[in-house]
Amino acid sequence: MDLKALVRLQESLAKLPSIGKKSAERMAFAMLEMEDEDLNEFADAIKELKTKIHLCPICGNITEDDECYICKDESRDRETILVVSSPKDVIAFENAEGYRGLYHVLGGTISISKGKGIEDLNIASLIKRVEEDNIKEVIIATNPTVDGETTALYLAKLLDNKGANVTRLAYGLPMGGNLDYADALTLAKAIEGRRKI
Amino acid sequence: MDLKALVRLQESLAKLPSIGKKSAERMAFAMLEMEDEDLNEFADAIKELKTKIHLCPICGNITEDDECYICKDESRDRETILVVSSPKDVIAFENAEGYRGLYHVLGGTISISKGKGIEDLNIASLIKRVEEDNIKEVIIATNPTVDGETTALYLAKLLDNKGANVTRLAYGLPMGGNLDYADALTLAKAIEGRRKI
Repeated sequence: MDLKALVRLQESLAKLPSIGKKSAERMAFAMLEMEDEDLNEFADAIKELKTKIHLCPICGNITEDDECYICKDESRDRETILVVSSPKDVIAFENAEGYRGLYHVLGGTISISKGKGIEDLNIASLIKRVEEDNIKEVIIATNPTVDGETTALYLAKLLDNKGANVTRLAYGLPMGGNLDYADALTLAKAIEGRRKI
Repeated sequence: MDLKALVRLQESLAKLPSIGKKSAERMAFAMLEMEDEDLNEFADAIKELKTKIHLCPICGNITEDDECYICKDESRDRETILVVSSPKDVIAFENAEGYRGLYHVLGGTISISKGKGIEDLNIASLIKRVEEDNIKEVIIATNPTVDGETTALYLAKLLDNKGANVTRLAYGLPMGGNLDYADALTLAKAIEGRRKI
């Protein structure tokens, strides 16, 4: 075939998550039929992504400003920090709208399989914030996975005796979920964490 | 949120076929973690797509050269033209490897619902090729849909008495398919088109 430009685009598209060879081909053909304006906008958006976005020096969340909009927001509860592993988690909590405190983004979890250790995570600045910013509570919200649990336990140990309560998100049945579909571990955790009603 | 660059990219990604808001978000975040080099390559591939690729003046297939590699290939059977609606179909037939003739790409099908008429398709040049290039057979391979059938019948009428046999692809059961899953129309066509073995 004499379509190097198309193949080149397909190769880039296939690097996106959950896009295989066939989907990449379909997308590339669809892009051939898109307006020039839309394609230029797409290319510019990609080019600008990394130049515009960087990590907030306080919490490690992604931002386009000097500091992220949450760290700058004086109306939030500035005595509570919710610790998450990635910026995506911040968006999930913000969309849920139940939390009004600050965040701290670790940029991953401790992972032996991925060779990610303590020094690769944004932990030192968390300790500093807890020590210096009069933090009353640190809620650890890493994922309920082996790596997430390891990270949570490690952080809890590090934050011991720093003056803040360290808590972990509740485990249990997902809302709107079906008992039939819950796995055994979730059910066991739901029983363990039962509350008086 | 203060992440205009991310939202902008998500909007572009959401214009791709079968990519919804959630997938676009996931992709944009994945792209944040991609290497700068890969992102630049991606953006450049998009920018180059339309500047490099255009339609072959003979058959209407996409190409990066003056004429497409099939039209230029002297080893092919130059007395047969397979008529398809889109360049994707050419690739499908080339991958199947059963066909060694030439192609003609209509750039769509006659479609009342999409307001696509005869004048929007690459038909005039097909008639010219059949009349001038000593074509013995025109195989019409539009999709087996209402629009595809309409287009096929219209072309057959136009090409009548131009000296070439006009044929249509066979209908029937897909190879490796299961009788249980075949729809009634396909089964009826399969019986209608039965052959002696």
